[in-house]
Amino acid sequence: ILGFMLHIWNFLEKAWNLAVSEPKKVIHCVKVGMALSFVSLFYYMRPLYEGVGSNAMWAVMTVVVVFEYTVGATLCKCVNRATGTFLAGSLGIGVHWVASQSGEKYEPVILQLSVFLFAAAATFSRFIPSVKARFDYGAMIFILTFSLVSVSGYRVDKLFELAHYRLSTIAIGTSICITITMLLCPAWAGVELHSLIIRNLEKLADSLDGCIAEYFKDDRIVDVIEEDKGKKLQGYKCVLNSKATEESMANFARWEPAHGHFNFGHPWKHYLKIGASVRSCAYCIEALSSCINLESQAPEHLKKHLKEVCMRLSSYSSNVLKDLAVTLKTMTISSDICLLVEDMNLAAKDLQNALRTFPNQLNIPSPPLETSASEYTKTEQLTKSSVALPLREVLSVATMASLLIEITRRIEG
Amino acid sequence: ILGFMLHIWNFLEKAWNLAVSEPKKVIHCVKVGMALSFVSLFYYMRPLYEGVGSNAMWAVMTVVVVFEYTVGATLCKCVNRATGTFLAGSLGIGVHWVASQSGEKYEPVILQLSVFLFAAAATFSRFIPSVKARFDYGAMIFILTFSLVSVSGYRVDKLFELAHYRLSTIAIGTSICITITMLLCPAWAGVELHSLIIRNLEKLADSLDGCIAEYFKDDRIVDVIEEDKGKKLQGYKCVLNSKATEESMANFARWEPAHGHFNFGHPWKHYLKIGASVRSCAYCIEALSSCINLESQAPEHLKKHLKEVCMRLSSYSSNVLKDLAVTLKTMTISSDICLLVEDMNLAAKDLQNALRTFPNQLNIPSPPLETSASEYTKTEQLTKSSVALPLREVLSVATMASLLIEITRRIEG
Repeated sequence: ILGFMLHIWNFLEKAWNLAVSEPKKVIHCVKVGMALSFVSLFYYMRPLYEGVGSNAMWAVMTVVVVFEYTVGATLCKCVNRATGTFLAGSLGIGVHWVASQSGEKYEPVILQLSVFLFAAAATFSRFIPSVKARFDYGAMIFILTFSLVSVSGYRVDKLFELAHYRLSTIAIGTSICITITMLLCPAWAGVELHSLIIRNLEKLADSLDGCIAEYFKDDRIVDVIEEDKGKKLQGYKCVLNSKATEESMANFARWEPAHGHFNFGHPWKHYLKIGASVRSCAYCIEALSSCINLESQAPEHLKKHLKEVCMRLSSYSSNVLKDLAVTLKTMTISSDICLLVEDMNLAAKDLQNALRTFPNQLNIPSPPLETSASEYTKTEQLTKSSVALPLREVLSVATMASLLIEITRRIEG
Repeated sequence: ILGFMLHIWNFLEKAWNLAVSEPKKVIHCVKVGMALSFVSLFYYMRPLYEGVGSNAMWAVMTVVVVFEYTVGATLCKCVNRATGTFLAGSLGIGVHWVASQSGEKYEPVILQLSVFLFAAAATFSRFIPSVKARFDYGAMIFILTFSLVSVSGYRVDKLFELAHYRLSTIAIGTSICITITMLLCPAWAGVELHSLIIRNLEKLADSLDGCIAEYFKDDRIVDVIEEDKGKKLQGYKCVLNSKATEESMANFARWEPAHGHFNFGHPWKHYLKIGASVRSCAYCIEALSSCINLESQAPEHLKKHLKEVCMRLSSYSSNVLKDLAVTLKTMTISSDICLLVEDMNLAAKDLQNALRTFPNQLNIPSPPLETSASEYTKTEQLTKSSVALPLREVLSVATMASLLIEITRRIEG
């Protein structure tokens, strides 16, 4: 029992930490509570209740199902729900009319068959990627409404009235949701996507710095802030699996009206391209950081030889990344960025030169050849692979830079 | 209008291709249609209708919402729905009793307040990762049922009867879903996960082969099957972003009863570990394949020098990967695997030796030093980085091998 209590305590502590670290989520919860209390007023206030009757249930259900964290997701679900209900409702009434014309005997057969066919077709459409991304929920609501209408139409006989009530309660529910989600501390999917990409760029820069520093670090100097550094080094790992989040955010952001710096037609697709470049940089850093953990480390004097130039390249690269983050944040092209990219390219060339002069240096002092060569190979293996990678990074950073410049131009123009 | 027609035609063609390539999904659609027609029988057959009345709507709704592609997902949703409804229902009745005891004046206030509080708390719990992974749907159903019960309780006065009907109709809906999903061509999440991992291993082996072959390929020989090769080479890209799919599959697989080779307590978590190793291999191949696209290629004679040993290493590595796929498929440890791993390690050592003798060879013929060194650096850069990576691969493949052996041992034991 004590173990169980401890388990619960841990759970509560985790929840509390989450609440403290992300107050926006707590605000979202309060908003859901408010929307629900608001919609339940329809029950308590007699004049409102007379208007819609027990169909008010549908308004409550709409609020619960439709209210999402971001404005874009809520809007997307509202539109899906309304469209799905309307389409399925009208189709259901049509099928019902056809069935009622064909005589008492065939009526249930036709209704059953239509439910089977439309449900199967709509379910299949949910597997098609382009439909799944945007209209998954709408297809589900279509199936639900269609089967409810065509099935209950057989009994209720007040089909138009029912359809009218359902649509009006859904309209009430969605309008409450949209009002509350947009007016009270709105969480825009676009803003979330924007700051996610900026955060990822910054994490990447930190990881790159940390990685190179770790590789060339002097063992004699004791690191006091080891833990903090390790955390920064691991930052790139979040970037590796960010694809799904970015895509859904960009998908929702398209539904949002103009807010803050973002207009309605903001080029959200470009954010996905930047995200892809950021991810390919993260793959490079993953490969780099695995060099740190190889058991065969390069000898000190070789490391020292390359240390300076590698450090310079990595600091320039991470400066470019940080500057890109700033560019994205302020949405203006800073004049520094071109200079920084040039510096980075120069540093990359320096490194190539340093590597080029390397075998000669090694052969001139002419130590016992066998060991030197083996040492040499090892370092080469390590440093070269850590060099080839920043070079590639330069390439992808350059693509990112051009993309970003295009975006800012579009926003300004 | 012609453009619009063409658009629709393309869409239909895409849908048809999807249907042909994945007949299982078509079967799923037929199953959904069947379940819905079956549940709508409750309306058409008078004796059944008398039993549940207009509450049969809830059975239809349950089927639409709960029926998912895999058995595990369906079971998970059924359990969530039933538990959420039951908990929220009893809590709602409790709150209703408390409110009715406290006088007419405070009743609506207490009800409103409880809706607000419980809805906010349940919404918050959906943000906690461990809850989100397993009980997200249950929390939503909890909010929905609780607000419906506590709100409608104020009017209906037949609360117990309502709760009874809702629970029994949900039971009808879920039992129909579970029966149809398990008996008719079931799609097990476990089997899907199993074959996804196997497919990923095979894709990785093909990509590795293709990548090394592409790098060392002779330009004189014209490739007839270029396109097919390119496709194989790109295979690893699906592996990069498979994390989310694997995790949800493993999550659903845990709900499934014993089926085929898999028992109830099958160690699905190990599949996630294998998936993670496979993904880290894919990151390596991503880095490798970027070496192909670098504009500065190594000169021919240096490539030739390393070609044989690199080809051998890559073919051994991909053989290990393929053998792991076979091991996983048959779930028996093949005796070859240890031999293959040993071969691979030997080949890796050969490559290291080849690299070690490399600088000497280069310096003995003593060509004009400047150009040789520069050429040398470039090749080194390319080949070394392509060498460091297979080496790492060996490491991760070794971890995978040991993991797999553990799994098979567990299954056999």
